[in-house]
Amino acid sequence: MLNEIDENRMISSLTGKFCRSPYQQNLIHESDAELLFFPDNSGSSIAVTIDSISEEISSGLYEDPYLIGWMIVMVNFSDIAAAGAKPLGILIAEIIPDYLDKNYIERIQNGINDAVNKCSSFVIGGDTNSGEQLILTGCALGKSIDKKYLKRKGCKPGDIIYSTGKGGRGNAFAITKFIKSKNHIDYFPEARIKESTVIRLYSECCIDTSDGFLSSLDQLMRLNDCGFIINNWMSIVDEEAIEAAKNANLPEWILLAGPHGEFELIFTISNENERDFLLSAGSINWNPVKLGYVTSNPGIVLNIYNRNQCINMKTLRNLPSHSQGDIQNYIETLMHYDSILRI
Amino acid sequence: MLNEIDENRMISSLTGKFCRSPYQQNLIHESDAELLFFPDNSGSSIAVTIDSISEEISSGLYEDPYLIGWMIVMVNFSDIAAAGAKPLGILIAEIIPDYLDKNYIERIQNGINDAVNKCSSFVIGGDTNSGEQLILTGCALGKSIDKKYLKRKGCKPGDIIYSTGKGGRGNAFAITKFIKSKNHIDYFPEARIKESTVIRLYSECCIDTSDGFLSSLDQLMRLNDCGFIINNWMSIVDEEAIEAAKNANLPEWILLAGPHGEFELIFTISNENERDFLLSAGSINWNPVKLGYVTSNPGIVLNIYNRNQCINMKTLRNLPSHSQGDIQNYIETLMHYDSILRI
Repeated sequence: MLNEIDENRMISSLTGKFCRSPYQQNLIHESDAELLFFPDNSGSSIAVTIDSISEEISSGLYEDPYLIGWMIVMVNFSDIAAAGAKPLGILIAEIIPDYLDKNYIERIQNGINDAVNKCSSFVIGGDTNSGEQLILTGCALGKSIDKKYLKRKGCKPGDIIYSTGKGGRGNAFAITKFIKSKNHIDYFPEARIKESTVIRLYSECCIDTSDGFLSSLDQLMRLNDCGFIINNWMSIVDEEAIEAAKNANLPEWILLAGPHGEFELIFTISNENERDFLLSAGSINWNPVKLGYVTSNPGIVLNIYNRNQCINMKTLRNLPSHSQGDIQNYIETLMHYDSILRI
Repeated sequence: MLNEIDENRMISSLTGKFCRSPYQQNLIHESDAELLFFPDNSGSSIAVTIDSISEEISSGLYEDPYLIGWMIVMVNFSDIAAAGAKPLGILIAEIIPDYLDKNYIERIQNGINDAVNKCSSFVIGGDTNSGEQLILTGCALGKSIDKKYLKRKGCKPGDIIYSTGKGGRGNAFAITKFIKSKNHIDYFPEARIKESTVIRLYSECCIDTSDGFLSSLDQLMRLNDCGFIINNWMSIVDEEAIEAAKNANLPEWILLAGPHGEFELIFTISNENERDFLLSAGSINWNPVKLGYVTSNPGIVLNIYNRNQCINMKTLRNLPSHSQGDIQNYIETLMHYDSILRI
C-alpha cells in the first residue's frame, strides 16, 4: 500500500540498504520524527527530524524571506509536535546564493528568530554555505516529558478522527500565489505544540498536515490498513480558503487534496477517551475539529457532489511528481479528476 | 580576534539576534558540536551538529558520488568526535537534481552506508527534495559516556599540541583535482572516533581539521588567546601530500594552509598528562603526531625557509572568501604570500 505513492517508494529505495539502529523506536514512515532511545542506562530518549525547504522557494511559493525563515522552524517543530514531544532546539543549515543582499538575509533570520520564540525554543546551531539557490534545512530536537511518543500507527476501526484546526489554508495560499487570485491568505502556520501536549495523553496515532489534509489522512490509512469516513467535509475547510478557491474558479475539495499543507495535526481518539480528551482540550481553550471516523475498509470517503465518493488518493498524491513542477498541468489534471467526481 | 575571520564574522552576524538556550553548554565557535543538556532530571545530554556539502560538489572537488555520500557522514561524525562524543546516528537531507540518474544516486547512498558502518553508527532519518544542484546536509547526534565533552577552549601556555595524524592530505587532494597534478591522492577521511575516546580523557581543547590544519590551529588560537609554536612542520605533513605539492610546483607549507582539511583532530595535552595520554594512545595502537606547544604570545610560528615566521592567518583564512571561488586567483595570492615568506 505504502509503495503506491511515489514519495514513499523513493524513500524506501534511498534507505533500502541502511541498517536500522537498535535504539530507534520507529520504522521508516511510522512517525513524523525519529524516536531514539539512548544506549545507556539513563532511559533517556529524543525525537529528531530533518526537513529542507527548497522547491517552495524555487517555485515562488515562498517569496517573502521572513516567511522562509519562519517556515524552516515551523515545519520541523510541527514534526516534533506530531511525535508528542516538546522542542529542545533547532539547527539550521543555510545555502545562501551570493546575489542575496544583507537585508534579505536579515529578514530570513528575523523569521527564524520570531518562529523559535513563538515555540519557546532556541536555535542551537547551524551551518552556512553558498550555492545557486536559497535552500534551508532544519534539524529539530524534541523530548517527551515521559517516555511516550506519538506515532502514525495505532488507530482502529471505530476511532474518531480529529484535527487541531481547519484545513485548506496551505493550498489556498498556493492558489493565491500561482493562480493569481485576488484574495490574500495570511499564511504563518504555527507548530501545534500546546495541542500536542493534550493529544499525546489520549491518542495513539498522529500526523501533521505538511503535505495537505487528504494526503496526510491517506498516509495514516496506508500505515494502519484502514479507511476514513469524513463527515461534512465543507465544515472542516477554512472559510478564507474557500473564498480563495471560489475566486480562482476551483472546486473547494482541492483545498484538502492539494500537496501544500497548513501544519495542523490529524489524530485519532478512541470512543472511550473522547470525553476526557475534549475536557482536556477545553482546559487549554482549544476546540478540536471533528473530521469523521475510522473504518476497516480502506479508502477515504467524502460526500462530494451529493454522494459518498472514495477519493483516488494514489492518483492525487502522485500528481505533483508526475507533473514535474508544471503547475498548469497539475491543475488541469486535478480539474479532469473533478469532472469525473461530478459525473 | 574571532571577528577578523570572514566566516566567524558571518556566523556572528547571522546568529546575532538569537537567544541562547539555557541548556546549551557551549557558546558560538566554542565547540565543534553543540552540547545540549536536557531540561529534565535525567542529567542526560547530547552533542549535535549540522553540516552541508555544497561548494565541494559544485566546484568539482567531490566528483565521485560515493565520496560525496562518504563525506556527508564523516564531516558530521568528525565534529561529534571532536566534541568527545560517540555517534548515536545521523539524519541526511538530500537535494537531488532531476538530471541525476538512479545509478548515480545509488552510489551516493552506498558511500553513506559504508561510512556509517565504518563509524558503527546508523542513518536514523532523512529528507529528499529536488533542486538545481546536488547538496547534502547531515545532522549527527552523539553522546558522551559520562558528562564530559570536549570544547575548543581550554588550552594554556606550555601545553603540548598533538594531532591524530599527519596533515595536508585534504589540500593535496584539492591540488590533484584543480591543478591537474599527475599524482593520485586517496581521499576517504575517517572520523577519529576511536582516538577521541582517549583524547577526551586527557585533553581540554580539541578541534577537527575540517578547514585545514593551520586554520583549525588559528581558530583555537583566537578562542584561547594564545599562540602556537610548530616544531619541524615538514615532519607532520603527509608524505603523499608532499609529493603532490612538489609535482604541482607548489610550496609544501600550502598543504597545511589551504582550506580543505583531512578531518584529523588537533588537541592539547598538559605536561602532567602527557605520559598517561601516550600510554593510553599506545593501548589502542595509535601513534599521535606531536605538533608543538602553546605559548602566551598570539600567532602561529613555523620555521619556514630557514627562519621562524609568524604566519598571517587572517589573510590566509580570508583568502577563499576574497577569491570568491576563483581558484586561479586563490593560488596566485598564495604564491605571492609565499614570495614574502622567502624574502
